[in-house]
Amino acid sequence: MTTPPAADITELIDVIQPRLRDRDLTAIGDAVGAVSTDQMTALLDRLPVKQRAVVYRLLPKEKAIDVFERLAPRSQGDLVLGLQDAEVVSIFSDLDPDDRVRLVDELPAALATRLLRGLRTKDRELTAELLGYPSGSVGRRMTPEYVSVRADHTVEESMRRVRAGLEQAETVYTLPVLDEKRRVVGVVGLRDLLSADPGAHVSEIMGRTETATAYDDAEAAARECTGLGVLALPIVDNESRLVGMLTIDDAVRVLEGEETEDSARQGGVEPLRRPYLATPLRALFSSRVVWLLVLAVGATLTVQVLSIFEETLEQVTVLAWFVPLLIGTGGNTGNQAATTVTRALALNDIGPHDVGRVLVRELCVGIALGSLLGALGGVITAVIYEPAIGVVIGVTLLAVCAMAATIGGIMPIVARVLRVDPAVFSNPFITTFVDASGLVVYFLIARAVLQI
Amino acid sequence: MTTPPAADITELIDVIQPRLRDRDLTAIGDAVGAVSTDQMTALLDRLPVKQRAVVYRLLPKEKAIDVFERLAPRSQGDLVLGLQDAEVVSIFSDLDPDDRVRLVDELPAALATRLLRGLRTKDRELTAELLGYPSGSVGRRMTPEYVSVRADHTVEESMRRVRAGLEQAETVYTLPVLDEKRRVVGVVGLRDLLSADPGAHVSEIMGRTETATAYDDAEAAARECTGLGVLALPIVDNESRLVGMLTIDDAVRVLEGEETEDSARQGGVEPLRRPYLATPLRALFSSRVVWLLVLAVGATLTVQVLSIFEETLEQVTVLAWFVPLLIGTGGNTGNQAATTVTRALALNDIGPHDVGRVLVRELCVGIALGSLLGALGGVITAVIYEPAIGVVIGVTLLAVCAMAATIGGIMPIVARVLRVDPAVFSNPFITTFVDASGLVVYFLIARAVLQI
Repeated sequence: MTTPPAADITELIDVIQPRLRDRDLTAIGDAVGAVSTDQMTALLDRLPVKQRAVVYRLLPKEKAIDVFERLAPRSQGDLVLGLQDAEVVSIFSDLDPDDRVRLVDELPAALATRLLRGLRTKDRELTAELLGYPSGSVGRRMTPEYVSVRADHTVEESMRRVRAGLEQAETVYTLPVLDEKRRVVGVVGLRDLLSADPGAHVSEIMGRTETATAYDDAEAAARECTGLGVLALPIVDNESRLVGMLTIDDAVRVLEGEETEDSARQGGVEPLRRPYLATPLRALFSSRVVWLLVLAVGATLTVQVLSIFEETLEQVTVLAWFVPLLIGTGGNTGNQAATTVTRALALNDIGPHDVGRVLVRELCVGIALGSLLGALGGVITAVIYEPAIGVVIGVTLLAVCAMAATIGGIMPIVARVLRVDPAVFSNPFITTFVDASGLVVYFLIARAVLQI
Repeated sequence: MTTPPAADITELIDVIQPRLRDRDLTAIGDAVGAVSTDQMTALLDRLPVKQRAVVYRLLPKEKAIDVFERLAPRSQGDLVLGLQDAEVVSIFSDLDPDDRVRLVDELPAALATRLLRGLRTKDRELTAELLGYPSGSVGRRMTPEYVSVRADHTVEESMRRVRAGLEQAETVYTLPVLDEKRRVVGVVGLRDLLSADPGAHVSEIMGRTETATAYDDAEAAARECTGLGVLALPIVDNESRLVGMLTIDDAVRVLEGEETEDSARQGGVEPLRRPYLATPLRALFSSRVVWLLVLAVGATLTVQVLSIFEETLEQVTVLAWFVPLLIGTGGNTGNQAATTVTRALALNDIGPHDVGRVLVRELCVGIALGSLLGALGGVITAVIYEPAIGVVIGVTLLAVCAMAATIGGIMPIVARVLRVDPAVFSNPFITTFVDASGLVVYFLIARAVLQI
């Protein structure tokens, strides 16, 4: 398991915390000595911020960097603030340039500037280069430390370059192939170099590759990398010249962050920046409160609608009983459509120009679902209550399902066109929207059928 | 971009379809000649099932296999049914064993058996081995074609083994290191072999590795692989002996499938097995209808509750106006908690034994949110309507938020304990549950405050 059974971590915390109070650092050092990198990462996230730095200092240097790299960026920021300057400078210079850039985003600007100034010239230049790309772009997540080969070089010559770059490069398994102007013309795998005739030219054995530009959205580039199933994707500038490589493990980290974000937004919460148990209660609160208030304000529309139809409600009070059922079903139908379309957008299965197709499909599915539910609901209501009410409920279910599926399917595409994350028009948002309009439909149908 | 701008595909379809009708296959061959593998995959998914086989046949052999591997398993199944037996046999034997196993799961049993019988002995054995692991286990997703090295071998000897296995193995960049009983004792990267002294022993340069057993859940093993940031994870049997490797690109595919599943369930739909536009309308319908019916039946509880409180409603009709607002807010709060906790479970940030911590945290956050909303809602209602109604609304908001956050936070953990996918206790499910209980709370509070 990635994360070891968390029970072990709870036990570890129980062992460590009394010793932290007693300042018995040797005993803690012993206790954490055998702990795996993963367990250590989880452990640090679970300790109060002040204790983290104390425990972190007890790790052997090599392991300390491994653990640090595995922490969420926000947790890295928390930890750094608890350490001494000299310790931070040392961690900072040991990080890969792309990891360094992620950390810089989490730190107070003054500290970040100081740290950057403390780097060796080479490292500072590499880091500054990445920081020059816009936030959210793949330029910030790629590694500028790669080995490239030339199309007109021989396999033997290329292998020499690989060996020379082994120490420094983040990846040597997928090698970008460049022409004389540093433009990417293909890729070659290390295994292809190993199996090829040493005298052959790289151009004879290289394969085609896709590329992304450093200014592209990191998520799109990451999905390109994982979608192609390649170990690294060449990242180029606007003149197709190589500037870095996005490795698949970094691509996976980008996508995991995006999935967390989408999943959160779908539920109407802002994504957490730290693991759940490491998130302070006030951060949990603030991740939810804004959306909840916005949605509650939206929901006051339903109060308006019901007060407008006050008379109808007073004449036939039984109508009130079905309000939660009807708007609930509408909300569910809308959610279903929105969920499906949002995911299809995220996977690039559809794009904004498919809006017509989505509209037709969702309308058809909504009518089909509404007909079934309406028939069932109408008949049952007619039998239990009275036929006229049955007709009202049946027709309303049909109308609400058709409307909700269409709105739920279109909204994520509208969001994409407006260049907003489609997951922002989240399920709760659609529910609230469908609630109010569903009620209007309900009472109009009731008035027509019951002739009041 | 992974998927090229889909507008191009629409154009391609417009070019191809008239020629399919005219049986002008040469022209189609020309049109698809320059199309990239990705575009071709998307194109096939968008064509009617019968036309797919025709277009697929026009692809050059090498490209045909690449395209086939990129299709969703269900789309592979669709395509196979349209091809001639001989063509299918040829595709089937060209696939990697793990891809073959995924396809077998999609095919009618008779066809699968016939295809398996047609394989060369070696391929049949490898495939049968994978098929022997339970569905959903990592044993079915790993590759049995790997190169392993021995801890007591020299680097030079190991490089010879790598060169010998280059042709056949799916991965050679991360090499499992075995002892004399084939037990995994570490891993060594190809780059470490390249940079090491040829006379050194593998045991001197190898690193530690995690492993998973072939019977482990594929998602857990995949998250382990991507979480560790390794290119391949050794998969072992119950005696720690190596049986395969899970490569990171296969791990990513497993996780992408799981994310799609989780995201779907969170919205109360069954996951689609094909890309959205390739999904027939009846499959869209059936992915939603069961959940929608279940939820509608659950929602009849709200009708019951309201009919029980009929008298209260008739005495103070204004109470009905706030029903959608109150249950909507409860549903949103519950969704937020459920979304956060479900994601934390998926990322292994928390486990079932954290149920107490989650309960306390969610209760606190729920009370905080409820207090804020209750105070605002209560005051506004008191001003607009009357003070007593304001008190009812305020207190109800507080109670409903606290209850909904707690239920929403606990339900996913309950699901995990019951060994059900936490995403199954989805947001619509929680909304429906919170709706009915929220109404009971509302009317009890109203009766107490208004003394009716």
